[in-house]
Amino acid sequence: MAGAQGGWVLTATARSPTNIAVIKYWGKRDETLILPVNDSISVTLDPDHLSATTTVAVSPSFDRDRMWLNGTEISLSGGRFQNCLREIRQRARDVENKEKGIHIRKEDWEKLHVHIASYNNFPTAAGLASSAAGFACLVFTLAKLMNVSEDGAALSSIARQGSGSACRSLYGGFVKWVKGEAANGSDSIAVQLVDESYWNDLVVIIAVVSSRQKETSSTSGMRDSVVTSTLLQHRAEVIVPSRILQMEEAIKNRNFGSFARLTCADSNQFHAVCLDTTPPIFYMNDTSHRVINTVERWSQFEGAPQVAYTFDAGPNAVLIAPSREVASLLLQRLLFFFPPPPDTKLEGYMVGDTSILQEAGVHSAEDVASLPPPPETKDKNNAQKYPGSISYFICTRPGKGPILLSEDQSLIHPVTGMPK
Amino acid sequence: MAGAQGGWVLTATARSPTNIAVIKYWGKRDETLILPVNDSISVTLDPDHLSATTTVAVSPSFDRDRMWLNGTEISLSGGRFQNCLREIRQRARDVENKEKGIHIRKEDWEKLHVHIASYNNFPTAAGLASSAAGFACLVFTLAKLMNVSEDGAALSSIARQGSGSACRSLYGGFVKWVKGEAANGSDSIAVQLVDESYWNDLVVIIAVVSSRQKETSSTSGMRDSVVTSTLLQHRAEVIVPSRILQMEEAIKNRNFGSFARLTCADSNQFHAVCLDTTPPIFYMNDTSHRVINTVERWSQFEGAPQVAYTFDAGPNAVLIAPSREVASLLLQRLLFFFPPPPDTKLEGYMVGDTSILQEAGVHSAEDVASLPPPPETKDKNNAQKYPGSISYFICTRPGKGPILLSEDQSLIHPVTGMPK
Repeated sequence: MAGAQGGWVLTATARSPTNIAVIKYWGKRDETLILPVNDSISVTLDPDHLSATTTVAVSPSFDRDRMWLNGTEISLSGGRFQNCLREIRQRARDVENKEKGIHIRKEDWEKLHVHIASYNNFPTAAGLASSAAGFACLVFTLAKLMNVSEDGAALSSIARQGSGSACRSLYGGFVKWVKGEAANGSDSIAVQLVDESYWNDLVVIIAVVSSRQKETSSTSGMRDSVVTSTLLQHRAEVIVPSRILQMEEAIKNRNFGSFARLTCADSNQFHAVCLDTTPPIFYMNDTSHRVINTVERWSQFEGAPQVAYTFDAGPNAVLIAPSREVASLLLQRLLFFFPPPPDTKLEGYMVGDTSILQEAGVHSAEDVASLPPPPETKDKNNAQKYPGSISYFICTRPGKGPILLSEDQSLIHPVTGMPK
Repeated sequence: MAGAQGGWVLTATARSPTNIAVIKYWGKRDETLILPVNDSISVTLDPDHLSATTTVAVSPSFDRDRMWLNGTEISLSGGRFQNCLREIRQRARDVENKEKGIHIRKEDWEKLHVHIASYNNFPTAAGLASSAAGFACLVFTLAKLMNVSEDGAALSSIARQGSGSACRSLYGGFVKWVKGEAANGSDSIAVQLVDESYWNDLVVIIAVVSSRQKETSSTSGMRDSVVTSTLLQHRAEVIVPSRILQMEEAIKNRNFGSFARLTCADSNQFHAVCLDTTPPIFYMNDTSHRVINTVERWSQFEGAPQVAYTFDAGPNAVLIAPSREVASLLLQRLLFFFPPPPDTKLEGYMVGDTSILQEAGVHSAEDVASLPPPPETKDKNNAQKYPGSISYFICTRPGKGPILLSEDQSLIHPVTGMPK
């Protein structure tokens, strides 16, 4: 091991996207390997707005594996971290860095420890699949640092053991997580259906819903559903397989009507299974219901789905519009019914790619206040509004998979080996 | 027809209970005959607190059928009213009232018109199955007036054509609505499982939840579910049949644990099917969810179901306790988390049989304010309360079926033939 003793530090830094399922994953057939009861399909979101960035550093001076998430040290003792670390270490190969005079042999990796620093460019607690981006990024970055030769599919199978939905964050665009058949999980992998440029008109708007409720973790929630819901098995065995085929077809044909119908129906069915669980799990709240009703009234008025909605294990709405034009009509509706609380500026209430807002002619909180009720509103003079029930909106789009970042974007100091 | 011309008026008056399903009816296989996709089981509620009272009057001076509901004339042109009227008229027999010198022959009924006055002793709009009590009472009273000899089962089949769940209000205690097989609906009838004295420790507390939302009618809601939910058929064909058997067993054995588990699971599954409908139907709101969480936390703390909850096509919670003692513990919890709004008296907030409240030591709004958090509360110093989210509570119990009332309780004037 050349260059050791003194304490060289070698790092790799990468950024990985989060993703939102349009055909939902709910229920494991194997808790340890994280093998699902059905296939799922997701769309990867633009990492510019929602992503995890992770640096993994290795140095002979490190005496144990350590990790910092958003600046705070967290325990790596959990089985999920250990599984990912072990699986990547087993596949580690020789690494040579001539510039730094470092040569790590394959067999050295078992003795070397790593420091991991990760941060999300969005609130971790907001229920926006931070663990999917985080584990995808951890596995991708570890694999880069350790010169692992496995392809995305093999890495996805490792990321899956950190957090099921993380496997889908190894690719951009639309991604299918194939449930697989093998007992060891080797064929439970993510595959890219189409990349992010294939259907690039899509616009994604996330409504982060205010909530004081503590939510059931998805891990314990889906465990309860598997044990107690009498509908879950029927969904997994009978309904999802045909929906997966229809969804692949809708994506291939960029058929937005079909895509939206399937996305909404599957989100609702996932929440139906949660409700069918003992004790019942409520992830959506009254605000979530009102967002759905806003979309459904609009689509009914127009006679066809205008936008798709989907909700994960929390009250936040993820809305997908077929174009910037429709997204701008959606934003007008959302801001009409869910305006910012009094004395709140539009900046901060609408983040991400806010250019659509400009196109919609909404430049300030005053513009929001003068928005007319949408044409589908029944009682236009008396439309109920819900200021303060949404914390903020994120405007984004489908995005690409993990990318390696340059050394100057490292989150770990190249000399001390500690988070910057 | 003796005594006619001048304008005699003959009346019959009866009172019928409402009922709440513990295994739910959701979905028709025949819209006109109102034939369900599955059996259901309900408990009849005490008519002292929740019932419809109906007078039907007949007179040769009436020139058409007319009806008044809660003092306001309503149209009888709907198919459901017409079906009930036609079915009973077809079974009408000779009626003789010597005292008044009236003799109506079987064949006269086709030419005679009726005036119907009905009122509910609870708010019609509160979503408390007023149509079940109303149609049961209409059919029962018409049958009495017209001297119909058919038994309760046959009458239930007629009431069913007014409102499906009305058939279950023809009996007290626990009642099963057998879905039947016949195409003409003749075997889709209600049967009494046990009468109201069989399991007479049960206490029922209804939380009438404040809501500004306009709800989907159950008629259109279940039609949408039948057409669009991919879970409804599985529920109706696979899950409900076994639950019906288990529920009959639980009732027969007065096994409250099993009764509560089945009741809660079936309520939640009915709402899951609503959520699985396109567009999704939300009957429960955040307050409904909080009532459920209150019960579930308590039951989990005690290690066994303490009370059962069930929700119909609206946000109101119907809670069933195994005894007055447990009901009093339930009331303490409900009043702790859902106190009356400030400056509200306890009278009016707690109606029906309020004696349990006295037993619980709660005599005033001040007593409510000083209730301690229940032992299962995690953060006792910081428990979240929701004043104003419940309009009022009704304390009641299982009750008896329809009864004929005396002439002095008639809602129609014996001379004018008009509502009093």
